[in-house]
Amino acid sequence: MNRLHQALFQPRRIALVGASSDRTRLTARAQLYLRKHGFAGDILPVHPREAEVLGEKAYPSVTDIPGEVDFAYILLGTQHVEGVVDAVAAKGIPAACVLADGFAEAGPEGAALQARLLATAKAAGLRILGPNSMGIINLNDRIACSVNAALEAESLPAGRIALVSQSGSMMGAIMSRGAARGIGFSHLVGTGNEADLSAGEVAGLLVDDPQVDAILLFLEAIRQPQHFADLARRAHAAGKPVIAYKLGRSPYGAELATSHTGALAGSDAAAEAFFRAHGIARATTLEGLLELPALLVGRKPLARPHRAVGVMTTTGGGGAMAVDCLGVAGIESRAPDAAASAALDAAGFAHHGRLLDVTLAGTKPDRVAAALNALQQAEDTDLVLSVIGSSAQFRPQDSVAGILRAREAGLAKPLAAFLVPQADQSLRLLAEAGIPAFRTPESAADCIRAWCDWRAPRAESAPPATPHPLPARPDEAEARRLFAALGLDSPFAVMSSADEVPEGIAYPVALKILSPDLAHKTEVGGVKLGIPDAAALKTEAAAMQARVAERAPGATLAGFLVQPMAKGLGEAILGFRRDPEVGPVVLLGTGGVAAELFRDVTLRLAPVTVEEAQEMIAEVKGLQLLAGWRGLPRGDLAALARAIVAVSHLAAREDIAEAEINPLMVLGEGKGVTVADAWIVRR
Amino acid sequence: MNRLHQALFQPRRIALVGASSDRTRLTARAQLYLRKHGFAGDILPVHPREAEVLGEKAYPSVTDIPGEVDFAYILLGTQHVEGVVDAVAAKGIPAACVLADGFAEAGPEGAALQARLLATAKAAGLRILGPNSMGIINLNDRIACSVNAALEAESLPAGRIALVSQSGSMMGAIMSRGAARGIGFSHLVGTGNEADLSAGEVAGLLVDDPQVDAILLFLEAIRQPQHFADLARRAHAAGKPVIAYKLGRSPYGAELATSHTGALAGSDAAAEAFFRAHGIARATTLEGLLELPALLVGRKPLARPHRAVGVMTTTGGGGAMAVDCLGVAGIESRAPDAAASAALDAAGFAHHGRLLDVTLAGTKPDRVAAALNALQQAEDTDLVLSVIGSSAQFRPQDSVAGILRAREAGLAKPLAAFLVPQADQSLRLLAEAGIPAFRTPESAADCIRAWCDWRAPRAESAPPATPHPLPARPDEAEARRLFAALGLDSPFAVMSSADEVPEGIAYPVALKILSPDLAHKTEVGGVKLGIPDAAALKTEAAAMQARVAERAPGATLAGFLVQPMAKGLGEAILGFRRDPEVGPVVLLGTGGVAAELFRDVTLRLAPVTVEEAQEMIAEVKGLQLLAGWRGLPRGDLAALARAIVAVSHLAAREDIAEAEINPLMVLGEGKGVTVADAWIVRR
Repeated sequence: MNRLHQALFQPRRIALVGASSDRTRLTARAQLYLRKHGFAGDILPVHPREAEVLGEKAYPSVTDIPGEVDFAYILLGTQHVEGVVDAVAAKGIPAACVLADGFAEAGPEGAALQARLLATAKAAGLRILGPNSMGIINLNDRIACSVNAALEAESLPAGRIALVSQSGSMMGAIMSRGAARGIGFSHLVGTGNEADLSAGEVAGLLVDDPQVDAILLFLEAIRQPQHFADLARRAHAAGKPVIAYKLGRSPYGAELATSHTGALAGSDAAAEAFFRAHGIARATTLEGLLELPALLVGRKPLARPHRAVGVMTTTGGGGAMAVDCLGVAGIESRAPDAAASAALDAAGFAHHGRLLDVTLAGTKPDRVAAALNALQQAEDTDLVLSVIGSSAQFRPQDSVAGILRAREAGLAKPLAAFLVPQADQSLRLLAEAGIPAFRTPESAADCIRAWCDWRAPRAESAPPATPHPLPARPDEAEARRLFAALGLDSPFAVMSSADEVPEGIAYPVALKILSPDLAHKTEVGGVKLGIPDAAALKTEAAAMQARVAERAPGATLAGFLVQPMAKGLGEAILGFRRDPEVGPVVLLGTGGVAAELFRDVTLRLAPVTVEEAQEMIAEVKGLQLLAGWRGLPRGDLAALARAIVAVSHLAAREDIAEAEINPLMVLGEGKGVTVADAWIVRR
Repeated sequence: MNRLHQALFQPRRIALVGASSDRTRLTARAQLYLRKHGFAGDILPVHPREAEVLGEKAYPSVTDIPGEVDFAYILLGTQHVEGVVDAVAAKGIPAACVLADGFAEAGPEGAALQARLLATAKAAGLRILGPNSMGIINLNDRIACSVNAALEAESLPAGRIALVSQSGSMMGAIMSRGAARGIGFSHLVGTGNEADLSAGEVAGLLVDDPQVDAILLFLEAIRQPQHFADLARRAHAAGKPVIAYKLGRSPYGAELATSHTGALAGSDAAAEAFFRAHGIARATTLEGLLELPALLVGRKPLARPHRAVGVMTTTGGGGAMAVDCLGVAGIESRAPDAAASAALDAAGFAHHGRLLDVTLAGTKPDRVAAALNALQQAEDTDLVLSVIGSSAQFRPQDSVAGILRAREAGLAKPLAAFLVPQADQSLRLLAEAGIPAFRTPESAADCIRAWCDWRAPRAESAPPATPHPLPARPDEAEARRLFAALGLDSPFAVMSSADEVPEGIAYPVALKILSPDLAHKTEVGGVKLGIPDAAALKTEAAAMQARVAERAPGATLAGFLVQPMAKGLGEAILGFRRDPEVGPVVLLGTGGVAAELFRDVTLRLAPVTVEEAQEMIAEVKGLQLLAGWRGLPRGDLAALARAIVAVSHLAAREDIAEAEINPLMVLGEGKGVTVADAWIVRR
């Protein structure tokens, strides 16, 4: 535990700058909550006029506080923050939290203020949480240094889950929802606007904390992605799951999540790829965020998930509902395999189909345990789900006993419960026992889907650089040369004038105007397809030159590009870009209009391995036409995978912002892929 | 209220056949629960040996009960049910409920037993609920005639929502979840296997009940669809919403939901079309089923929904989360329009963008009411959502007061609340006030989406019959003649032998073998495209005859079909079938492989109007290529709409099971559509 960790999470002396004596004010809350929840250290209110604030000796300024201070919570309005940060820095305090907003997100003036503040802090080694931060809560050590109203609660259950939230109000909402379920937290931190400390860096400080088993993230945006990557790798090594709920799954949400910081929103597909690559599990339901830790804590991601579960139920309708919701989430409830069937037969359970209904067999703990143990034997499932009916409501001890007994027998795979009726007491008992328990069929499906999607962080690899120089505005020939340098087949010739017909090219050919100024060549008559021979090529080139010169008089014309008419079995789009949040990504989609109409695209962080490229190909529906669908001829998907890997290596080319091959023609098996059109945009 | 309604929902004298004196037994529960929850009428236990059961005088048989009996709950095992039904029928009891299962769903013996039982009942005018029914609860009249364990609760809130559930255990689970929220029910009925009374018919009995404001349905399958259609139409006329949660959204769920009755599962798309056509709102989350009634009660379906809402929040993060979840469900959170902006300005609210964050303006009831009233002014939204932060947890009265005040001012559109923290008391207050309130962002989005999807029942119309005779196994020519009779362009000629080349057909043509025995003509070499002239046609026909005769020696060959090679701007699939649950449906999809690969299809109950057909076209993504997408030439979508209407009229042809045109070529605007291939399967 380093000094920053101690300052943020185990401070002994806390300065509250701008503390108020008026209990009804927001700025009084941190002091009230610290005392209310049992802070045992020194509270040091700073107040310009009062000698005492809410019963504690107050100081006129930070400078006047005697001795070392671990942490300062600055509760003052925006315009007063800078002066205080100077004093906090001068005093040698290692960390401060700023409640006010109105900094970089509020315009150029705020941005200038923030820059000065950060420069002061940096020079003094002071780290800043916020601005717009609701503070920090450490429930095990009874340090509630926050203005969050959720601390009005008389007591809050401490636990072993840390929450780092960019939203201060969600920090309180999640804590209150957890408390009602008996799900306790170790730490809760609001990172606000993250001018300095990002959620990833703060969460990283908690990985080695012995009070922490899992880290939850409530995110509006991914800032400083390298911190998240480091956090996730270290957490995986320490066996502590990292679980994120991130806004931005819809365009409206994405717009909101980033609008107040002025950052560009990355795509949700890129965020998804980021989480996946780094081994961060993602919950897509609010309740799932609370319910997922119990499922992941103490487990490692599955190497080869079956995306299937065994389901036992004491309620036919409730069990069918769970099976249906799981199916909607892409998880199959599977009938017992040979091993599980044999175990069920041996234990005397009648069974058929996807749902083991033990209603008739009775819900006695021994029988429930026997059924669950039998389902555990299946070799083709990732989890066993127990769906509990009315007993969960009226006989909580009984309803939970069977699961606990099954666990005692030793578990090959996770055992989880979905409680169909209102069953607060059973949920609490299961939470206390560390058994994953779900309150709704939708959150059950979300968590089990997240468990099957969870992967170990992939190995970090530096892509090989491709030392191929590019002009500031590459035309298609220059883009194609770079792709050729990456190893892609991209046959073409350049004609510098209409007379210079190239030798040795296979007709028919396509002719395109070359110009760094023309992004849309077709619109100015700069593309002609299917030219049969050299004579026609010469004529077409002269006509094209005249046409384009007339339609785009200002454009620099660098000549013509001539390429053989490629005819593949299918077309793909292969792209590279730098997502504003997560950085370089590679994108694969069906060629033609399908990618856009049907959103038939997939995406990964770049660079990718050939295995990841193969996964991408399998995820694009339109490319299944080239994978032996309905007896159609197979395309060279191995060559396509190699092409994806090659294009993903553009991640090493810091000078390239975006690149796309569209279409990339996929030829028959063993015949490769070939670039039919390409462009590159430099940064 | 007819006699059946009185017997089921307001019985004064209830016979419990097979009641037990052993309080721990399932068969004792109905008696215990009736008394526990205050039944004021006569309980008439029937027991072969005991003179008294649990303090009530018992009778050795149903026949021995003196006077009229309104309702009999038969609690005996399967093998004893038949004799009792005879006695119940003989006694003139109007309705009986059967707890046992093991009838039609258990095999031929059970089916025979059920048939005898229903014949007896029908002859005597006795209606049967179940088998496998958990009984009936009427909370307002304190009649808890059920064995459902949820009745263990000391008291249950009565309300004005009726629940009809095919699953008995879900009936209890939903009641218990409602009770915890302060959401009370009027009636709860378990219809079980529905040998006689279906959920639709039972729900229909409740439409005119003055205790009922809304009807919820928990469905595994749609049986007796006409009852649902009648129910929904009458409920709409009475201003009472009907809301369904139906299993079968995933294939695994569909398999389970119908497997125990042996019925064929219909498709979920057909169920969705059924609900939509009949004005039944559908919840897709369990919690949404409970939360949706407050939103729909007292309202009519929107004629032209904007699929957009105005959102006010007292928590930035919580508000953004709601906006994001709404967006995922296809609902836009819209920035205030001119009218709402003016009202916000007048009330002194700063506002920009999709989310009205009033955190700084304060959460005082007056201000909240003013903000909500201003958002109500928007002309382009369907609802106003108030997202409430920590005040919902600690100051429930305050947090709800603003909403109540806004409602007092009169509402142009629904006002609903999503409570971000744990806020049981606020949820209860809102439920009591009849304000729609959501516990999770996902159920909020589900309910608001359901509100925007809700339609008035469409007018029932009998499609015109097409008196065109068909043989038992129509070949393509016969199928095409029927489609031509329906008004579709379907040019073709028939060659009875290879020598009889038809006159007046435009070359190039396609040639196909005609046979009622060959469903897959291509596989036996029975299709040849692009034949340039009459001479080639003759040669090809002779070759085809020889080829097919060799590859399919047993097939009857009826000659050849010749058709011009159709070249459209695009292709569609247009199909008709009879869904095993909901009946005739018409299906439209992109032609080629896209329909299958991308599931790019849509479906409606048949027949459809031209407006419905236009909606269908707009829902098929691939057909947008023909609707002016990116400047591409427009297809004749008006002709396509007419074709959909025509094919949907096959609903009147009871002799037709399935029909498909694939592809239907869509020509340029004003040029129509033309059948390129077609088949029909008779029932």
